[in-house]
Amino acid sequence: MKTPVKGIIPPMITPLVSYEKLDNQGLSSLIEHLISGGVHGLFILGTNGEAPSLSYELRKEVIKKTCDQVNNRVPVFVGITDTSLKGSIELAEYSRNVGADAVVLAPPYYFPVSQAEMVDYLETLLPRLALPFLVYNMPSHTKVHLSVETVKLAKNMGALGIKDSSGDLFYLYELINAFKDSPEFSIITGTELFLPETIMNGGHGAVAGGANIFPELFVKLYEASLTKDFEVISDLRNQVLKIYNTIYSVGKYTSRITKGTKCSLSVMGICNDYMAPPLHRFNTAERIQIKQNLNELRSYHKNLT
Amino acid sequence: MKTPVKGIIPPMITPLVSYEKLDNQGLSSLIEHLISGGVHGLFILGTNGEAPSLSYELRKEVIKKTCDQVNNRVPVFVGITDTSLKGSIELAEYSRNVGADAVVLAPPYYFPVSQAEMVDYLETLLPRLALPFLVYNMPSHTKVHLSVETVKLAKNMGALGIKDSSGDLFYLYELINAFKDSPEFSIITGTELFLPETIMNGGHGAVAGGANIFPELFVKLYEASLTKDFEVISDLRNQVLKIYNTIYSVGKYTSRITKGTKCSLSVMGICNDYMAPPLHRFNTAERIQIKQNLNELRSYHKNLT
Amino acid sequence: MKTPVKGIIPPMITPLVSYEKLDNQGLSSLIEHLISGGVHGLFILGTNGEAPSLSYELRKEVIKKTCDQVNNRVPVFVGITDTSLKGSIELAEYSRNVGADAVVLAPPYYFPVSQAEMVDYLETLLPRLALPFLVYNMPSHTKVHLSVETVKLAKNMGALGIKDSSGDLFYLYELINAFKDSPEFSIITGTELFLPETIMNGGHGAVAGGANIFPELFVKLYEASLTKDFEVISDLRNQVLKIYNTIYSVGKYTSRITKGTKCSLSVMGICNDYMAPPLHRFNTAERIQIKQNLNELRSYHKNLT
Amino acid sequence: MKTPVKGIIPPMITPLVSYEKLDNQGLSSLIEHLISGGVHGLFILGTNGEAPSLSYELRKEVIKKTCDQVNNRVPVFVGITDTSLKGSIELAEYSRNVGADAVVLAPPYYFPVSQAEMVDYLETLLPRLALPFLVYNMPSHTKVHLSVETVKLAKNMGALGIKDSSGDLFYLYELINAFKDSPEFSIITGTELFLPETIMNGGHGAVAGGANIFPELFVKLYEASLTKDFEVISDLRNQVLKIYNTIYSVGKYTSRITKGTKCSLSVMGICNDYMAPPLHRFNTAERIQIKQNLNELRSYHKNLT
Repeated sequence: MKTPVKGIIPPMITPLVSYEKLDNQGLSSLIEHLISGGVHGLFILGTNGEAPSLSYELRKEVIKKTCDQVNNRVPVFVGITDTSLKGSIELAEYSRNVGADAVVLAPPYYFPVSQAEMVDYLETLLPRLALPFLVYNMPSHTKVHLSVETVKLAKNMGALGIKDSSGDLFYLYELINAFKDSPEFSIITGTELFLPETIMNGGHGAVAGGANIFPELFVKLYEASLTKDFEVISDLRNQVLKIYNTIYSVGKYTSRITKGTKCSLSVMGICNDYMAPPLHRFNTAERIQIKQNLNELRSYHKNLT
Repeated sequence: MKTPVKGIIPPMITPLVSYEKLDNQGLSSLIEHLISGGVHGLFILGTNGEAPSLSYELRKEVIKKTCDQVNNRVPVFVGITDTSLKGSIELAEYSRNVGADAVVLAPPYYFPVSQAEMVDYLETLLPRLALPFLVYNMPSHTKVHLSVETVKLAKNMGALGIKDSSGDLFYLYELINAFKDSPEFSIITGTELFLPETIMNGGHGAVAGGANIFPELFVKLYEASLTKDFEVISDLRNQVLKIYNTIYSVGKYTSRITKGTKCSLSVMGICNDYMAPPLHRFNTAERIQIKQNLNELRSYHKNLT
Repeated sequence: MKTPVKGIIPPMITPLVSYEKLDNQGLSSLIEHLISGGVHGLFILGTNGEAPSLSYELRKEVIKKTCDQVNNRVPVFVGITDTSLKGSIELAEYSRNVGADAVVLAPPYYFPVSQAEMVDYLETLLPRLALPFLVYNMPSHTKVHLSVETVKLAKNMGALGIKDSSGDLFYLYELINAFKDSPEFSIITGTELFLPETIMNGGHGAVAGGANIFPELFVKLYEASLTKDFEVISDLRNQVLKIYNTIYSVGKYTSRITKGTKCSLSVMGICNDYMAPPLHRFNTAERIQIKQNLNELRSYHKNLT
Repeated sequence: MKTPVKGIIPPMITPLVSYEKLDNQGLSSLIEHLISGGVHGLFILGTNGEAPSLSYELRKEVIKKTCDQVNNRVPVFVGITDTSLKGSIELAEYSRNVGADAVVLAPPYYFPVSQAEMVDYLETLLPRLALPFLVYNMPSHTKVHLSVETVKLAKNMGALGIKDSSGDLFYLYELINAFKDSPEFSIITGTELFLPETIMNGGHGAVAGGANIFPELFVKLYEASLTKDFEVISDLRNQVLKIYNTIYSVGKYTSRITKGTKCSLSVMGICNDYMAPPLHRFNTAERIQIKQNLNELRSYHKNLT
């Protein structure tokens, strides 16, 4: 795998038919949809992938089948965040064995931990880790906001980069500034709306949930950001905003984003929209709303490209 | 097991020598310390028990060894809270097989869920659950505060009671009021300071972390609350406050309570104070502080009893 | 005025006919309603009194007319909390000139201040203050939670006591414990539900908003708490809970409590329910709801007494 | 005054010698410093101007003296946010009488209000308002985040624009998108770091606190943003980040920004750094730190320009 990690790396949803069973056909279709859309990598088993809701067996199945299907066409990043240290270690080992490229690691999410405890945790975990890793800042779900200082320490311990899903642009600019002399260290935003800001100011990529549905849109926005083509950026950003204001606005909580994404992919015929407990798929009324939103977005999208 | 569940039920800490290995001798000593202190039950693998940080194998070992050591002298309640539905189901099944009495269940803690999603979750889980259960309200760690309405629905689905660790006394009084015509449904506070309020107003018991260290103190406070002996309540409550202001005041975050409890038990020679990652035991300076606190508390405690 | 300040001290609502004009008749009726209900003092121009929404002229009118109407039958406490130091100083001076007994002071509420800034603020203000004072802890509106240490410093600077509206019972017990050797320093809860806990554990009184509507209920609950008559406490506490679950449950935000209180008093024919901007009185549907709640509460209340 | 309001409009600090007295010489010097730095307007009596801490008399003095000194060279915007409706009305009237151009209005900040209450409040206030107005979104201090819908209603009632200090870039983009067909309605960011994003995406200006110290820096950044000169933007943005990481990083709370700004202006010999209670100026150690920061920033700034 080449460094720095960069480009559009969708946080892939996990197609399921039940909480114990993958939607295998859907998984294949989704991966082909993403790769043909031009994405630069896949991030599986993150928040959008519902990893914490899946048993270890099922997570391993996702890792294996994704690596097989991708077959080295793009790098595969595997989320190994877990409350159990042993669980994370085993998932990393399994990932290496089946051909994944790197792992992604957020703080264990049950106990609120301090920065010092997070650093200690990394020091305990890293010598046991079978693959290179990125750290993942996700304060809304993990109860800790990784400080720039903690990220620097993570880099010194070997981190390839950071994925930041805090939604805090000031923090993102701080990160870019802090690592401007380390161009091989990737700054990846998890807030898809900030893709142009990230790229134009020296960051490397985006783990953009919307790229599950519209991979090309995000790849084009990434490319326009690289060349600072402001007119295209402005048009495409409006489309991203439209995703927020339609698909991501149905329902409540952060989980509505994953639900809307799965529902969209189901409407598009790509995969099943089953959600593992405690979440559940959109109801009929919500699905109809998503269908309408998709039609609008796709007609708009077509005009542009 | 008799209902309603009542009395002092310590949320037992898990004695460890590493993140993969129990402190077996410490576990036995701790259980004897608690039972000889007069507690009315044991709650294992809760927050204080660091359950989310332990592998399933280790959690099963804790369940088995606790049930064996207790040998039906008091009921054993097992925390099965997990982000994976399958994990919870398997832990409940294992618990039944080795002789535990009931399980305790908080919302899965990664995704913030709505009340409706929590109810759906219970509806999915309960038919697959091998033992009777209590629900556990723990908003600081699970991102959802169970509404009184949700607790009523849980009761209708078979819950034996609720353990509330919200720290919200108004909510506790609401619960007591809402279930006053169902005396077999237990209202158990997880805030040890609220033990007298809970009992005197019609609640049933306390999952009191401090009872790991001083089981007798809490048992006496429970008894004084039952008889509304206000003078004794006042003296003993001051001792509980002293625990807050000493042992629970070292360090930061909610996790300092578990750390201080484990450190105290280690100083008392009962068990090891190793904490599973991402938490870590107190350092030497903190341990010296705990030792002093314990000496003060124990001399004070002796005078009283 | 005798110290310690104690008993039931309603945070009196301010009867208005417009944002510039008092409801003079309503003010007289309300004061007589409260005094005949047995209250031990009046606290005017607090949160419930909408002080921040009133011009200085109008606040002065409330102070003067209240002192005249009360005519020394019970002590009058005047809220002088203000973002402007000069405003607070002038209100205190005016209060003394027209015969009020003491002032009540929360932190200035626009800028979030530190404990040290609050102490400095008191050091600047107190030498210029014309009357004795109580401090007022109101974190939800003032953005700072006064530490026990800050309250101790306030006491050393001459504070007569503290009114705590944090809703945090643990903090209240800490206060009672911290000042147990200073029986002349008043610990007054602003959370009416905590009245029995406060009194039975060594506190002095309650600034109970519900006492605007039902002064006798709270006076009786205070008396039962003094004598630790648990049966009466339990019955009366259920009535207080019923106020929360009916009158205080209409509408949203903390402001619904003041709205429900004013609406109740209007339904009872005591005074106008106009609210100063930015708040507004309940609409017709909400008023009908309040009317029904009052009927239930009053029939229940009659049975008991 | 021309619309739309645009450019760099510093939220001017208020030079004081005591809580009752202006630093008149400092006020003149500061205004000349800002106008010679090229700013496009002045916003007085906002959060940075410590308006809530000042008596009405003192606020009127600031308005009068600023208007006199500015003498129509740039427009003057006056903050009239107040918890008392009458106070706001009188300040607006006074502002018109002495020649100010418009007023700026955030929600009254004591009671948390709903969107509906805010709209009602505007409907009550606006017919009584003597000058055109902008709305001001400042959730951290006013306890309400104005919804896009509320801003639309404000526009329909005559608002000239919105100043947004939420720090939420997604919201800012939503605003720009919502008003893209109303180019005369100004979208002004209160987060100085977001100046380039605001301007490049269709917004109009920035109320940039740092422009009190370095007016030229922000004017140049505004101009580079207009022409989308990314190289200059990148250099200047790094300087703004440096202000955050130095001057704005001394001390705690939002108030540290105003303190650091006043301290910087005092070190530069422009005006006094007295802060009205409850805030207080930096101590000697903090002042030495600010002096060093200023030296670094100014040498860096010189190299660039």
